[in-house]
Amino acid sequence: MSISRKEAGEKFLSRQQESFQPATLIAGLRSGDRNALARALTLVESERPEHRKLAREVVESCLREKAAEKSGRHSLRIGITGVPGVGKSTFIEGLGMKMVREGYRVAVLAVDPSSEKSGGSILGDKTRMEKLASQESAFIRPSPARGTLGGVVDRTREHILLFEAAGYDMVLVETVGVGQSETAVHGMVDCFLLLLLPGAGDELQGIKRGIVEMADQLVVNKSDGDNEARARETQQDYQRALHLFPPAENGWIPPVLRCSSLTGESLQEIYSKLFQFRDAMNESGAFSERRRRQAGDWLHEAIHDALTSGFYNHPDIRRELSEEETSVLAGEVHPLQAAERLIRLFEQRQDRSQSGI
Amino acid sequence: MSISRKEAGEKFLSRQQESFQPATLIAGLRSGDRNALARALTLVESERPEHRKLAREVVESCLREKAAEKSGRHSLRIGITGVPGVGKSTFIEGLGMKMVREGYRVAVLAVDPSSEKSGGSILGDKTRMEKLASQESAFIRPSPARGTLGGVVDRTREHILLFEAAGYDMVLVETVGVGQSETAVHGMVDCFLLLLLPGAGDELQGIKRGIVEMADQLVVNKSDGDNEARARETQQDYQRALHLFPPAENGWIPPVLRCSSLTGESLQEIYSKLFQFRDAMNESGAFSERRRRQAGDWLHEAIHDALTSGFYNHPDIRRELSEEETSVLAGEVHPLQAAERLIRLFEQRQDRSQSGI
Repeated sequence: MSISRKEAGEKFLSRQQESFQPATLIAGLRSGDRNALARALTLVESERPEHRKLAREVVESCLREKAAEKSGRHSLRIGITGVPGVGKSTFIEGLGMKMVREGYRVAVLAVDPSSEKSGGSILGDKTRMEKLASQESAFIRPSPARGTLGGVVDRTREHILLFEAAGYDMVLVETVGVGQSETAVHGMVDCFLLLLLPGAGDELQGIKRGIVEMADQLVVNKSDGDNEARARETQQDYQRALHLFPPAENGWIPPVLRCSSLTGESLQEIYSKLFQFRDAMNESGAFSERRRRQAGDWLHEAIHDALTSGFYNHPDIRRELSEEETSVLAGEVHPLQAAERLIRLFEQRQDRSQSGI
Repeated sequence: MSISRKEAGEKFLSRQQESFQPATLIAGLRSGDRNALARALTLVESERPEHRKLAREVVESCLREKAAEKSGRHSLRIGITGVPGVGKSTFIEGLGMKMVREGYRVAVLAVDPSSEKSGGSILGDKTRMEKLASQESAFIRPSPARGTLGGVVDRTREHILLFEAAGYDMVLVETVGVGQSETAVHGMVDCFLLLLLPGAGDELQGIKRGIVEMADQLVVNKSDGDNEARARETQQDYQRALHLFPPAENGWIPPVLRCSSLTGESLQEIYSKLFQFRDAMNESGAFSERRRRQAGDWLHEAIHDALTSGFYNHPDIRRELSEEETSVLAGEVHPLQAAERLIRLFEQRQDRSQSGI
């Protein structure tokens, strides 16, 4: 589904060259034009080199503007994860509505429900966050299939920057918690929130290891009715357990809260804790430090990709690599020796192509 | 200290070219000559290209021999970590002595005590594992300052292979638990053991995050006398806590044991659990799968290093990179844009150097 959407997007972009000019898009973003934002997001998802170039110009212009503002008012980027069935949509809608009522503009990068392995509503996209979607100051975008294609993760980063340029100061990024995407998304957000189910433990089967330690806030969801006692127990278990693990560098002890979608009370507490976290991190300087580090990581990842992709995409290398790999995995060849041979082969191929042979 | 040892090692190697010939060393390793092993370890630590080449030949020959054997009898590589003061030396000596008594040959790659930030015996090297060191079938090697120099981690992998080629079937790798080295060592061993102190929690200040989840076995050390009750509590706390975290892919639930150096009982249990782990992993195929994956990772790391080191070591790039980095960290320049400019510059410099300008 995401592929066909991508293809459709690229066709669309090609037909409408003029409305994808950076200047037009940037002016649109600035004036709060929702269509301009949607177009910019589509542009950023395109894989075509000519679109990538335009997309970077748009994003860089957004960055420049933001740096020039020096307004000091930070957006807040929040990653929200949990297994299918934990109630992410309802939770995000509730939290988003709360933010809207408090005067914030809220953007959500939502998981495409068709990409979730199980659970989720069979009614699909339409019933997800309907109430939030109808708000003037909210914008919901189903994310492209993140984590399945190389480079798609960069799009998430660019999406975030576009949302902010369009004036959205709360950016919620949903992930499903089962793949590599959480580590990636953790490297793009200010705050990471993990949703859990009452009755702890079993649900984590299949979830990525290390994810609990990434969380800045844990929320035991569906804490209502018969579940409440169990949710309380789960809450206490995690509160105790987190003390047995190394503390985060920023000194923050992740709160473990409970949430019921039936009462507004718990959302208020979760909301307050998020801003308490932001204030504490701002005060210590950890907030901007985290963003700086993330920008630096992005730069170095991009350099790495550029330096290694020529090697890994070279047809001769691919063939030889798979042979060398087999010998290395069988324990017959020294990995360093194999690497040396492959690099030498790559250099020869490059010399040859440069001298026109 | 490690630097001067390294320099001394390289000088020594240069003076004694003949005794560092691969054929001589391999024959020595095969016949159980301790001096040949020591010389091979020193050769592997050298950074000089001509030594690196010899070292790889030795290691590759060891690998070939091992693959040809197909004996099915696996060595066991065990990483042991814990903060300074947790009692690693005493623990390793106890475990090593137990293994020696059971007929195993034991090699220890020990942390240089001068590299530990605090704690440790002021008497230094000499009193560490004296009893084990005097055993015919044990070999203790202080490791070079791991994690401070790029590439040194590769040496640890090669050290392990040399130990095994010399007939040591139990290889214990000690780390201090505070830096990047644990993740690296975790990627080189079959089994990872974390030592804890009774009274849980505070000691983990400063330890690397994620380390608890890496452990295949946790041991609450110094569980004797007044400490015993506290150690029991710590043990139960961790047993409970580990259930709240995502389980390992291999299905193993890490046992949490207690250890007293005053009684032999607890060591017996720890020892048994290690072999229980090995047997379970062997049965499911996870053991050789882990080794295969580690060899593959080593190959790809080596390729990555080779492909990126030319870029990062180029003087023009270093200068420009630091400027671009500053703009990226300030949020003024798009990381992808900066990466693109740097890559273009690098390609120009390479073209120029190839055409002799």
